[in-house]
Amino acid sequence: MVLLRARDIGERGLIKLIWELVDRGARPEIRGNALPHPDDASALQLNDGRYIVIKTDMFVKRTDAPRGMRHFQMGRKSVVMCASDLAAKGARPRAFMHSMGVPSRYSSKSVLELVEGVLSACSEYDLTFLGGDLGESRDLLVAGFMVGFADRLIKRSGASPGDVLVVTGPFGDTASALEILLKGKRAPPRLRRHLLRSIYLPNAKVDLGVALAGTGAVSSSMDSSDGLAFTLHELARSSGVRLALSKVPVSSAAVEFAAIHGIPAESLALYGGEEYELVLTVKPGALEEAKSAAERCGSCLIPIGVVEEGKGVFITEGGAERPVEAKGWEHFKR
Amino acid sequence: MVLLRARDIGERGLIKLIWELVDRGARPEIRGNALPHPDDASALQLNDGRYIVIKTDMFVKRTDAPRGMRHFQMGRKSVVMCASDLAAKGARPRAFMHSMGVPSRYSSKSVLELVEGVLSACSEYDLTFLGGDLGESRDLLVAGFMVGFADRLIKRSGASPGDVLVVTGPFGDTASALEILLKGKRAPPRLRRHLLRSIYLPNAKVDLGVALAGTGAVSSSMDSSDGLAFTLHELARSSGVRLALSKVPVSSAAVEFAAIHGIPAESLALYGGEEYELVLTVKPGALEEAKSAAERCGSCLIPIGVVEEGKGVFITEGGAERPVEAKGWEHFKR
Repeated sequence: MVLLRARDIGERGLIKLIWELVDRGARPEIRGNALPHPDDASALQLNDGRYIVIKTDMFVKRTDAPRGMRHFQMGRKSVVMCASDLAAKGARPRAFMHSMGVPSRYSSKSVLELVEGVLSACSEYDLTFLGGDLGESRDLLVAGFMVGFADRLIKRSGASPGDVLVVTGPFGDTASALEILLKGKRAPPRLRRHLLRSIYLPNAKVDLGVALAGTGAVSSSMDSSDGLAFTLHELARSSGVRLALSKVPVSSAAVEFAAIHGIPAESLALYGGEEYELVLTVKPGALEEAKSAAERCGSCLIPIGVVEEGKGVFITEGGAERPVEAKGWEHFKR
Repeated sequence: MVLLRARDIGERGLIKLIWELVDRGARPEIRGNALPHPDDASALQLNDGRYIVIKTDMFVKRTDAPRGMRHFQMGRKSVVMCASDLAAKGARPRAFMHSMGVPSRYSSKSVLELVEGVLSACSEYDLTFLGGDLGESRDLLVAGFMVGFADRLIKRSGASPGDVLVVTGPFGDTASALEILLKGKRAPPRLRRHLLRSIYLPNAKVDLGVALAGTGAVSSSMDSSDGLAFTLHELARSSGVRLALSKVPVSSAAVEFAAIHGIPAESLALYGGEEYELVLTVKPGALEEAKSAAERCGSCLIPIGVVEEGKGVFITEGGAERPVEAKGWEHFKR
């Protein structure tokens, strides 16, 4: 038997093996989840027909904290990560708890700053902080757990041909920030501050996700934290459809940063990650209703294409259609 | 400012600092938890008056897996740990998810064995396995997260003078097993197998905890995974009472092991840990009702003392009363 190591097969390869194991045994233990794997979160139906929606996401400092990120920001982000996934399912986050791993050499000051960040995010998103567990580990890490409620669920798998593909904001800021932090690229102070803020202090579109779910106009939804291109491919695969983009939603800051460095702004928008927008499909004829709901939360929806029969993700530019690569950030692989 | 490191103040010291931070700010973010810190788990009340009870507990291989423990057993134990805490609150566990940290050199075979252990425990306790997150870390670890439901909650803080102190089984097997594994002590094969099983394949008293909660006979409850002595002290402190023990519930295997090595069996029972019995107080006059409920689950209750006014934990032997030390296992401290 070939010995496969985590680093050889990557995070997604390992997750695939785990679910093959579960499915191969036709294990009854996975029944009862109203949002089965793969989706952004899991859900259990309550007696009154509503759903508890739950999510765990782990933030490991060594692999997930870009250079310069403060402990406060790490704690805050561990909450935002989960809140965004719940929002994508139309669920209102209600409470947060975490298991924290702390290296024994770590100062209590750093740990308390991290907890301050968690509390700050709980305050922003109106969550009850439930505490959790604390243990010793060689990495500083926060395994966050969030519980929320939804009247109805929006799955990844509900998109149909004819739906309109929309996003809740432009992309590219975080990829530009990572070019600065990981590759040492430069930007004027104002632009640099704006870009770094996108990675250090992200926001989850909670009110918007809940409001959109309330309309019934949305057929499928996913959070974009794995990067726009990867998210589009995952949505297309889950729904068994083809996504035809008419444009890539690039932020003005990413356009400015791309122009300075002579790099394609579209790539920054498509192949980034750690960006907490929602990618949704809206039922035919319901776009205005969805847009109105977004405006009432002080947000907007950007239509970027349509859902078609078939598979894959494509973009039409200058009359020519070309495929969008399925790239995104992945753990283990180097 | 003095720089306090995690290893200097210990796990409990760090947790104390965190809750001081939360309380000092009178942070509103902790409102809404029906089982406030410190208790075995957290709870949110539902519209119909019932409770969602949630718990996170982290299993880190390097610090929590004794020598010889298999990956299957680690995965299984990460579920049992949470199930026991829910059972202590009278909640029926419903679903389990986890964030797993995996070192990049790890074989996928080991990870899959660990997941098999998780699935096996989900099957034993009739839980839905919801999957979770996977990331890279230098320690193999499972941050488990469990969701359950309860009609009513049993807190740590409900004991009153006059209540009877009971446990759901005898203690000492796991401490004996740790003497074998950590200190190389010997035992005849049959005894050794029995003792090691207690640490490798523990069981949570789920049906018993739920049945006892159903009677209304129980005034307070706590899971004993931090060790019997520590649990008794914590229960006394939380309830603001004194616990007067008339006996220490020692298992026959611990008595046998203690006799072989000339060590006090009582110490094995009091100062162990990783033992998933429940420690409860039963209202005056309700002991027979509680015992009957236990018998209907094929279990039993062992009365070990009474609740009195005052504070601390004491044991009376041969007419003389002496205090029980508040010792237990703790992370970070060496």
